[in-house]
Amino acid sequence: MQIDPTSVWSDVRAIKTTSPLIHNITNYVVMESSANGLLAIGASPFMAHAIEEIKDITKNADALVINLGTLSSSWIPSILVALKTASFKKIPVILDPVGIGATTYRTHITHTILSQGKISIIRGNTSEISWLAGGHRPPKGVDSLLVTTDCRDQAKLVALTHHCIVWMSGVIDIVTDGTYTIYIHNGHPLMSKVTGMGCMATALAGAFTAVNQQTLVACAHTAILMGITGEIASENCKGPGTFKLKFIDALYHLSLDQIEKFIRVEIL
Amino acid sequence: MQIDPTSVWSDVRAIKTTSPLIHNITNYVVMESSANGLLAIGASPFMAHAIEEIKDITKNADALVINLGTLSSSWIPSILVALKTASFKKIPVILDPVGIGATTYRTHITHTILSQGKISIIRGNTSEISWLAGGHRPPKGVDSLLVTTDCRDQAKLVALTHHCIVWMSGVIDIVTDGTYTIYIHNGHPLMSKVTGMGCMATALAGAFTAVNQQTLVACAHTAILMGITGEIASENCKGPGTFKLKFIDALYHLSLDQIEKFIRVEIL
Amino acid sequence: MQIDPTSVWSDVRAIKTTSPLIHNITNYVVMESSANGLLAIGASPFMAHAIEEIKDITKNADALVINLGTLSSSWIPSILVALKTASFKKIPVILDPVGIGATTYRTHITHTILSQGKISIIRGNTSEISWLAGGHRPPKGVDSLLVTTDCRDQAKLVALTHHCIVWMSGVIDIVTDGTYTIYIHNGHPLMSKVTGMGCMATALAGAFTAVNQQTLVACAHTAILMGITGEIASENCKGPGTFKLKFIDALYHLSLDQIEKFIRVEIL
Repeated sequence: MQIDPTSVWSDVRAIKTTSPLIHNITNYVVMESSANGLLAIGASPFMAHAIEEIKDITKNADALVINLGTLSSSWIPSILVALKTASFKKIPVILDPVGIGATTYRTHITHTILSQGKISIIRGNTSEISWLAGGHRPPKGVDSLLVTTDCRDQAKLVALTHHCIVWMSGVIDIVTDGTYTIYIHNGHPLMSKVTGMGCMATALAGAFTAVNQQTLVACAHTAILMGITGEIASENCKGPGTFKLKFIDALYHLSLDQIEKFIRVEIL
Repeated sequence: MQIDPTSVWSDVRAIKTTSPLIHNITNYVVMESSANGLLAIGASPFMAHAIEEIKDITKNADALVINLGTLSSSWIPSILVALKTASFKKIPVILDPVGIGATTYRTHITHTILSQGKISIIRGNTSEISWLAGGHRPPKGVDSLLVTTDCRDQAKLVALTHHCIVWMSGVIDIVTDGTYTIYIHNGHPLMSKVTGMGCMATALAGAFTAVNQQTLVACAHTAILMGITGEIASENCKGPGTFKLKFIDALYHLSLDQIEKFIRVEIL
Repeated sequence: MQIDPTSVWSDVRAIKTTSPLIHNITNYVVMESSANGLLAIGASPFMAHAIEEIKDITKNADALVINLGTLSSSWIPSILVALKTASFKKIPVILDPVGIGATTYRTHITHTILSQGKISIIRGNTSEISWLAGGHRPPKGVDSLLVTTDCRDQAKLVALTHHCIVWMSGVIDIVTDGTYTIYIHNGHPLMSKVTGMGCMATALAGAFTAVNQQTLVACAHTAILMGITGEIASENCKGPGTFKLKFIDALYHLSLDQIEKFIRVEIL
């Protein structure tokens, strides 16, 4: 397993060259920013959810992204058809169980999705992945203690239980398949002050898994890319408004040199 | 009743310290900008509307924001459950009757909401509050004459009729409980050239009322904060695109010194 | 037919002076950016889709914009009522068949709309207009060959078939009524790296047709305005994030001098 600047850059180049079509069934809050993130990295976003056309779109896509923010029940049948189509076409499926644990409904829907199709990556913050691991919310302040054995073990448990890659976002990002665990030390605190950064990470994971069949590596690449871009965007930054546009600019211009300069990753 | 830089700052500090959870049932156009405004001030936004989970979310929230832009009938039952839950939990409810008077439907829904739960604040522009006061649209150009006795009287009438605070936004903002009236002379014309600024004001009122039980004061604080932030954002501003991001930056960095420098408020 | 800097400017002045109300039934991804584009040019955007109020809104609007991105079946009855109301009130209707050809559903809905009311302008990219012309997708890379006779002929065919103006967006924009064809050589590649620029073009066509009854000319004016604004926004631009806000700033400040400096149009 190779995860270094060259391997990250190889995926970035592949995305720019092949422009994979990423089908997003995502929430209203982040539709625009996720689309702009995908465009900036060179992928082709397609946002659609109507049951009448969902199969037509997923079957031509290179990856499917399912995000449960602002969920309503009328979207569930479409999500399940898209999931079935993606499983049949063997394209990667990225799941972002936004707010799982906050409501019984989101927990129920997440488990329905996990039971009805093959999920390649589950991405969430510490609270969301911890909830999936055991049904309990982590104690307050756990985000600042992200590399505790507890967090790692919860992420690994979810990966092993659901036979997928788990990406737990936080001060340090953890990406694991249950056996190998990758810690990404990149990122910037302003990322938590702009809505939709986590959802954009999920969408970009769709682009990386579309060009790289090693899902664990593709997922770690995405986390590295997001973190490095956040650090570059924070330079000469005047606040979360400026940060948001600089992030898109930095994503668009990201170079191998910058990846080499900023990357901080360890595989354990 | 104390409304001065120190009292505004006290609420801002409380929001940053306690990060109140603001449940927003709002329109598609402004979901992202309202969430970013709340994050910039230090609050935690939660955008959700599904009937299956609405009670779970409102019962854990510190304030509920109901905004009627891009309304459709499938959301009404959720709004009413959220309203009932908020009344039971005694958390503040902020109502933004976007476009009331433009359609019979919006007028009808607004009155349904007002009849079924306790509203803490109604925020709207001159036309919307005037419509609520008497069912008639104000003559064209009334915005520029905002501090006429008519405007003040209409806002007071709505406050007294619905036993709530009324915030009438315009060139000068009026905040009233029907007895006391506060005029806020802060703000900038570019605020009317960016969509969702009024809706962000409504969302931020949720954060202020969550930390300050004196609703009239909390509402005036929000109006002062929005107006001052608009003036700061307009400095060295190149147009409404730049303004929007500078507004978020300014909201994030707002200091007691800036509030002292810019505040222009009178209580009558 | 006069299409020159003075004629473009005359429409821009008319929009700023009369602030036409543009009723948008559009997709979730672009609602905010389309509203901000309309505000920047001086028009009044109204985003609404509920069947209970759709007639009230369209009947007071100066133009109707129908955009089929993120479509779902629950919106179709509203679209058809709005279309019928617009036809009765004789206001212009602009149709953006986003993604037509990508799914059978979108093709079906587009043809339903075209059969049930008078459409003033159909705006789409090369693929979408080509699909409408013959039901076949153009070969890959056709965008870079936009001024081939094929493209022009497809746009003209669609215009003649549906008795409307067709605006085919690409490296060079084609605007045609089937008899006269206008080529607009303005624009910038970054426009394709920000989501919603095409949809904003469609929305702005609503504003231009609201103030100029010569639909072919109004549509060409919109294409010129979009292209010139894109070129101005690209100056000193650091990427698609910066571009997006500079575009709105440039739209807000656009002057007759700038139009004279940048305009590149030919009528054939």
